[in-house]
Amino acid sequence: MMKRIPLLICSFALLALALPVLAADQDVIQFREAIMKTLNEQSAALGQIASGAVPDDSLVTHMDELALAASTAPQAFKPKVPGGEAKPEVWSNWADFSKRMSDFAQQTAAGAKIAKDQGKDAAMVQLINFADSCKGCHDMYRMEKK
Amino acid sequence: MMKRIPLLICSFALLALALPVLAADQDVIQFREAIMKTLNEQSAALGQIASGAVPDDSLVTHMDELALAASTAPQAFKPKVPGGEAKPEVWSNWADFSKRMSDFAQQTAAGAKIAKDQGKDAAMVQLINFADSCKGCHDMYRMEKK
Repeated sequence: MMKRIPLLICSFALLALALPVLAADQDVIQFREAIMKTLNEQSAALGQIASGAVPDDSLVTHMDELALAASTAPQAFKPKVPGGEAKPEVWSNWADFSKRMSDFAQQTAAGAKIAKDQGKDAAMVQLINFADSCKGCHDMYRMEKK
Repeated sequence: MMKRIPLLICSFALLALALPVLAADQDVIQFREAIMKTLNEQSAALGQIASGAVPDDSLVTHMDELALAASTAPQAFKPKVPGGEAKPEVWSNWADFSKRMSDFAQQTAAGAKIAKDQGKDAAMVQLINFADSCKGCHDMYRMEKK
């Protein structure tokens, strides 16, 4: 019985150490998913504007939202926490992945500026480039769960 | 038989008129849903920052994204197209609904400014107000589909 008490204490101590780590991992995954879902929703909105399905009044705002979300993505993937739809290659090919993410952030920021300065038609050309970047990166680093 | 041909032509003409309208309605619903989902994702990200679950480096950016998404919401609900999770009251109580939406856009814009000028603690007070606005409006105007 005397032997069991230290074991129990030890188990609780380990549990206390382990639980916050697990919670933090889940938080890291949820946080980056909130960012990627924002990119997805804003891309969808921009796709509708591009096709003429909805008015383009808020084009610049949506381009700004896309750029802001993209700017938060590289940092959100930095913690090496596999899970969600991220393939382990995100971290094993980190140099490539993070370059793609940073490039995407720069492209979307440039696109938002183009939308502001040059209007819809010029912005649409940029949008097609974004779409390619999305697909290229998703093909390599995302396992989609539906 | 001669009578049927004009009827058929008439039916096709009506169909041709009706189809684009249906497509446009679906577009209107999808577009406003992209905006509301962005609000949802950015609120979730801010909630994680508020609780300390993730670092607050990108607080101002997320507040900006929330404010930009909120700024596009009032216009997106203007077309009277029931569907999705919007209750018909959105349009039958339009004066109230649109005031709430505009207030929310102003609150989030003010919140983004507060985050920039005064930092995290002051921004968190604003966030709690947003959360109340979200719930108040959702209780009245949203039928959640899960």
